[in-house]
Amino acid sequence: MGTTQLEPVPEPKYWHLKTVLTEALDSEFSVGEILPNERDLAARFGVARATLRQALEQLELEGRLQRRRGVGTTVAPPRMGVAVGSEQHTWPGAAGDDWQPTDCTLAVPPAAVADLLETGRDGQVHTVRRFRMTHGQPVAAELLYVPDSSVPALSAIDAPSGAARARAVLRELQRLALEGQDQAVELGSAGAEDARELDRLPGAPVLLVTTRFHAEGRTAAVSVATYRADTCRLTFGASGGVEIHHDPQRHAS
Amino acid sequence: MGTTQLEPVPEPKYWHLKTVLTEALDSEFSVGEILPNERDLAARFGVARATLRQALEQLELEGRLQRRRGVGTTVAPPRMGVAVGSEQHTWPGAAGDDWQPTDCTLAVPPAAVADLLETGRDGQVHTVRRFRMTHGQPVAAELLYVPDSSVPALSAIDAPSGAARARAVLRELQRLALEGQDQAVELGSAGAEDARELDRLPGAPVLLVTTRFHAEGRTAAVSVATYRADTCRLTFGASGGVEIHHDPQRHAS
Repeated sequence: MGTTQLEPVPEPKYWHLKTVLTEALDSEFSVGEILPNERDLAARFGVARATLRQALEQLELEGRLQRRRGVGTTVAPPRMGVAVGSEQHTWPGAAGDDWQPTDCTLAVPPAAVADLLETGRDGQVHTVRRFRMTHGQPVAAELLYVPDSSVPALSAIDAPSGAARARAVLRELQRLALEGQDQAVELGSAGAEDARELDRLPGAPVLLVTTRFHAEGRTAAVSVATYRADTCRLTFGASGGVEIHHDPQRHAS
Repeated sequence: MGTTQLEPVPEPKYWHLKTVLTEALDSEFSVGEILPNERDLAARFGVARATLRQALEQLELEGRLQRRRGVGTTVAPPRMGVAVGSEQHTWPGAAGDDWQPTDCTLAVPPAAVADLLETGRDGQVHTVRRFRMTHGQPVAAELLYVPDSSVPALSAIDAPSGAARARAVLRELQRLALEGQDQAVELGSAGAEDARELDRLPGAPVLLVTTRFHAEGRTAAVSVATYRADTCRLTFGASGGVEIHHDPQRHAS
């Protein structure tokens, strides 16, 4: 209240601070380096702790910073390009797939998945849990929903659950002729189980990829994969990825 | 401290609250309805305001709630499926495109874009600004970077800037034979200008889609599009979208 603002200020304070911090990250810090604590940073930039925290949150959203329990805030490496959609459609579990099946249960899927599979709201489907490692890091967790009608030859003699059962379901799925797939990407927050597997806190922002697999003129399987939004850039297309660490605010100096 | 917890609590409080709130949203509220204020909600669920706020933030991330200035917190409609990648590749501005060009300037692109276009860190490129409306709502803002070499016949007589110039650049681009494209999706935060156009606060979570267009054996143009993460589900694939409002936590009742 004691100062007079001569010009309109179109940007909130934390937004300006974010820009200043981004420049400091580019010029003074290297990947993996631990940032000074919040008190020192707030003092250096002459802002309130709350403003600083908002700016740090933005930089975390943009993948520039990582906050890790017991470590503090570090400068993040560039995001990894992770191939999600390619022009050659293949079934989950096909050769070259970098997903690891860990479990399989019979369960009632979420209502929206049940509607796609036309299994009815109370019908159980094979639910394969897989996760994906890239460069030794867990990047995604998946639930793959497969109705009985898509794996008719699946034998009850196969392992009733666990990774062996998951592999049996995937193997049977390969027998169907895949006609196509479509995908959707949206923002979500990590559920408790996904968070644990992805080494994130519950509620952390994630990218949800829903893939619908078409065979025999219907939706033969639905995959819902949860990707870490902090470390992953999802790529689509023939070349397997746009090699760009994107930052629309950063210009050539 | 006065109560004894007999069981380990693996989930943070706000996460549990989020689950409870989700059920309340499903059963008691309809789309567009304004939620009670934070004080009343906190009292109803017997939690601290800070816990409530965290849970509301999660639900906003998941697209279940919208917070709007001057209105309050409302129950969000299901996200819109917005087609981002299709199997038929076309140039920006091709027939059927629902983007509106608004401006075109000559500018030095971000360093990462300059590297893809091989225009050098100080080279200026035609920078077309467009935005996209779906169902009367702005859903995305785009910067399309086109080097001179991709539009060699572009005349200086054409409008020097503005929407007319943008249309001239797009028209010239159509002359090149498009060989393919690839795309990447990642989480970002809205810059000040994008935020204004998309009716969001600066720093709001957005989905950044980077598209590289290939022609004449090189990258002929790069588009960086900022999609509202609260209202959009980005779809990829032939059928134009997975018709699913995804919520991995919500199961059939």
